[in-house]
Amino acid sequence: VIPHLDVVLVSPRNPLNIGAVARAMANFGFERLIVVSPHASHWQEARSAVGADDLLKSARECATLAEAIAEATLVVGTGSTNARKPEQQLVHLPALPAFVSVEAARGGRIALVFGPENHGLTREDLSRCHLIVEIPTAPRQPSMNLGQAAAVCLYELVAHASRQPLMMPGTAQPAAASGRLDLLAGVIEQTMIAARYSPRSMEAANAEDLRLFLRRIAPSEDDTRRILGLFRRILWRLPSPKQD
Amino acid sequence: VIPHLDVVLVSPRNPLNIGAVARAMANFGFERLIVVSPHASHWQEARSAVGADDLLKSARECATLAEAIAEATLVVGTGSTNARKPEQQLVHLPALPAFVSVEAARGGRIALVFGPENHGLTREDLSRCHLIVEIPTAPRQPSMNLGQAAAVCLYELVAHASRQPLMMPGTAQPAAASGRLDLLAGVIEQTMIAARYSPRSMEAANAEDLRLFLRRIAPSEDDTRRILGLFRRILWRLPSPKQD
Repeated sequence: VIPHLDVVLVSPRNPLNIGAVARAMANFGFERLIVVSPHASHWQEARSAVGADDLLKSARECATLAEAIAEATLVVGTGSTNARKPEQQLVHLPALPAFVSVEAARGGRIALVFGPENHGLTREDLSRCHLIVEIPTAPRQPSMNLGQAAAVCLYELVAHASRQPLMMPGTAQPAAASGRLDLLAGVIEQTMIAARYSPRSMEAANAEDLRLFLRRIAPSEDDTRRILGLFRRILWRLPSPKQD
Repeated sequence: VIPHLDVVLVSPRNPLNIGAVARAMANFGFERLIVVSPHASHWQEARSAVGADDLLKSARECATLAEAIAEATLVVGTGSTNARKPEQQLVHLPALPAFVSVEAARGGRIALVFGPENHGLTREDLSRCHLIVEIPTAPRQPSMNLGQAAAVCLYELVAHASRQPLMMPGTAQPAAASGRLDLLAGVIEQTMIAARYSPRSMEAANAEDLRLFLRRIAPSEDDTRRILGLFRRILWRLPSPKQD
């Protein structure tokens, strides 16, 4: 059983690597590729390569990672765990199928996100992820080639998908989609500004912490709607910052 | 725990693939690469590539697969299962770590063999293998890129190596090494000829069947020594073919 999963490549550079990711997806039966802000000429070259897979031709292109994962309920980041914050959950790849099975079983939509070849996912990218997956590589050569990393992750999801999922009590509803969390974060931020919660210079850091916090608590869609309603009400009640 | 394992590439063609196999070996902590009958210029190019791993520089070169695996007690072939004979054991990759753990636990030496990119291992190559491993790929695109196939196999061996090995009773001794089985096969073939067992036109097919049979029964070194002794004695007792 292949889970409902999007593979997302953030700014891939090497057309051979893009082709290799598509090949691995076809090998393991995955169909939906999304490319975020690709380098135009490299992306063109990968798509027009001889023998390019159909899934490269039908791949979606997005300007931002937020847009690419807006409908995902479980966003899994890969690679450079140096950039993660200590409170983000790190999962070894052999344990990932259990998480993906739970999410698929409750009707969620999964995104598996790979960063650019040179530096991997940024701290901001990672703040949009619920989990960060780590491939158990050797300390002397930890960094994998993009096409090989994708092959290993997709293989693990297919080959070990049938194992007993780690069913967690009270998690029958999928979490709200990433785009809904972004909407909620926007309203909370407006509220923070209206309440003069922090100086302007802190706002960027707060936004990142807020994204991480929302992914850590992973509210359901119902919860998200309630929290949104509350904050909209608070915002309406707060005096406008211009007034005083 | 990394098993005692040689990665063997038979006539690889693409220098990028050779480099990718070396990268995956370094990523998962494997060190011994053997290249069989490489295309000289491609092999030279792979070894001299910028950033080429030390293990490419220290790789062994062999003229034949038989020579490359002469000391191996468990030879695992990969890929094209079309060429295998029905009696050869086929193992899905997720089950391979159990076999490798048993062999490593009893002090054996494992070789994991990959064929050339275009056609994979030949029927003759496969007749030197104890097991043929199959990566569970999708029927619509079953054929994997060499570098990605190697990454997936080595990942599986490392990531799932700690699972309980399938310990089989009565298999505490490793099987005889591949080179010893070749010696035994040679003596048995001479005996077959001396005994006028089959017409000359059948000899090539018999040789392949004999190789397969010896790998299927996988005699220990002690057994191999005894069988060799018996056949040498028979050969000595048989009248020379020239005499009658």
